Amino acid sequence: MRDVIVIGGGPAGVSAAIYLKRFKLDVAIVMKDQGTLANTDHIENYYGIVEPITGSDLFALGIAQAKRLEIPVLVEEVLNIDAFDGFKVKTNQSEHEAKAVLLATGMNKAGLKVKGFQEYIGKGISYCAVCDGFLYRNKRIGIVGTGDFMFEELEVLENFTKDIVIFTNGEPLGKEVTKHKTITEKIKALKGDDVLKVVETIDGDHEVDVLFVAMGTASAADFALRMGAFTENNSIVVDENFMTNIPGLFAGGDCIGGLRQIAKAVDDGAKAAIAINKHLKGKTQIKA
Amino acid sequence: MRDVIVIGGGPAGVSAAIYLKRFKLDVAIVMKDQGTLANTDHIENYYGIVEPITGSDLFALGIAQAKRLEIPVLVEEVLNIDAFDGFKVKTNQSEHEAKAVLLATGMNKAGLKVKGFQEYIGKGISYCAVCDGFLYRNKRIGIVGTGDFMFEELEVLENFTKDIVIFTNGEPLGKEVTKHKTITEKIKALKGDDVLKVVETIDGDHEVDVLFVAMGTASAADFALRMGAFTENNSIVVDENFMTNIPGLFAGGDCIGGLRQIAKAVDDGAKAAIAINKHLKGKTQIKA
Repeated sequence: MRDVIVIGGGPAGVSAAIYLKRFKLDVAIVMKDQGTLANTDHIENYYGIVEPITGSDLFALGIAQAKRLEIPVLVEEVLNIDAFDGFKVKTNQSEHEAKAVLLATGMNKAGLKVKGFQEYIGKGISYCAVCDGFLYRNKRIGIVGTGDFMFEELEVLENFTKDIVIFTNGEPLGKEVTKHKTITEKIKALKGDDVLKVVETIDGDHEVDVLFVAMGTASAADFALRMGAFTENNSIVVDENFMTNIPGLFAGGDCIGGLRQIAKAVDDGAKAAIAINKHLKGKTQIKA
Repeated sequence: MRDVIVIGGGPAGVSAAIYLKRFKLDVAIVMKDQGTLANTDHIENYYGIVEPITGSDLFALGIAQAKRLEIPVLVEEVLNIDAFDGFKVKTNQSEHEAKAVLLATGMNKAGLKVKGFQEYIGKGISYCAVCDGFLYRNKRIGIVGTGDFMFEELEVLENFTKDIVIFTNGEPLGKEVTKHKTITEKIKALKGDDVLKVVETIDGDHEVDVLFVAMGTASAADFALRMGAFTENNSIVVDENFMTNIPGLFAGGDCIGGLRQIAKAVDDGAKAAIAINKHLKGKTQIKA
């Protein structure tokens, strides 16, 4: 079992991993891709980088820095995290155990950009199969998404009902699924009264009792929700030591909200690492 | 009058200046030297800098970055700051006016490393001539220091008494002073009962009623004290917007305490800049 698994290879994750490594802890980074940093092509406000740099290049510098310090960087997609006596991080390739986990996966995803989406969150739209699946047992469950994360959520939902519809929202599903109905048209709107009732696609209306959202990669907030960690406005709630309400589960960077700046993410990472080190060594937590 | 003067050219100051410049504010950095960063010869825990770097080299990168963004970097020693309708920053070479000031001068100086020093702080040892000089009018005042900042303090003290002794603590005084007695021997101890009474040097005991400390360059805490800003344990007290109790006077980095790490200083600078921009534009302050 490792000491710490850092999920996310951006500024917050790498900054934390560097500090953790220097505390002589056994730390690994598990990451999928560059996240939002890939969308930035001109960074000139981060101290120490004199000439403007693209987000991709800065991301690459961070990974090079981690590797130079012999921090393993595992390019795997995290599908689930279980808290047992420590944490079990399940990826699309493997399973890793650690005494502590730092969520640093960047901004939590927005949902579908269609009419009715915001309105029905918590009123028939759910981000968490483990949390809410049971409420819809033997009902008609819709799920929107296509990747490994969607299939992970789907497997959870299959415990509750046989009546499941997969919405791919215009994307190819990738795998063949025979057990469930699959709607590949783009979603146009979400409709209902007090609660969600209908997913409208180009080919017509599809009645559902709930729609689970599992698009793309799972975000830190998705994991946090599944594990029972508090979130607020789609940001993970942490204390002054960057720890969630689950002992040993930490979060930093964009996924905890606040200023969406590299400087802030790097600082979060450093402070979270110091707090994690104290946590693992059983010392009293002090304000980082 | 400029919008903002940033005092200090290290990570907090430059980070702030970069953000301020990008807000299209008229900002200048006033700095004396590299401060504590010069003492660090191996930095490998700052995100984005792949190979270990010296503090001096990182400092130079920061200055180059500021200059690339056409931020004036004035190498002048700040001697005093006056809050009028805005701020007047007096240096050893000039005087600058600004609507807001950010103190980012790094760690606040420790005092003399001699027996009795800690014991008599606030009991006959003072860091602020403007604050405490009046309490010792017509008394015997000692002052320890040698540079321009000491002479600045000395000038203030001359308003209160003719009986002044300058202690250079083993350093050359630089200028010739005929008006006051000058003791150039190293200070061995500070003695007294409830309050300081005697400065002991190698050549004997020297009775004083108070000893003002004005060694080296003035620190941010020195300016803060003079202006009536709150300090606590030698750190400047700021609110969540990095503003002191004096409207328009901000502080960030090591001089406000907390984690003494580059990552934290850079983040402080970014957040302070955002708050300063809001302050100058008369917007409601929100938690940065």
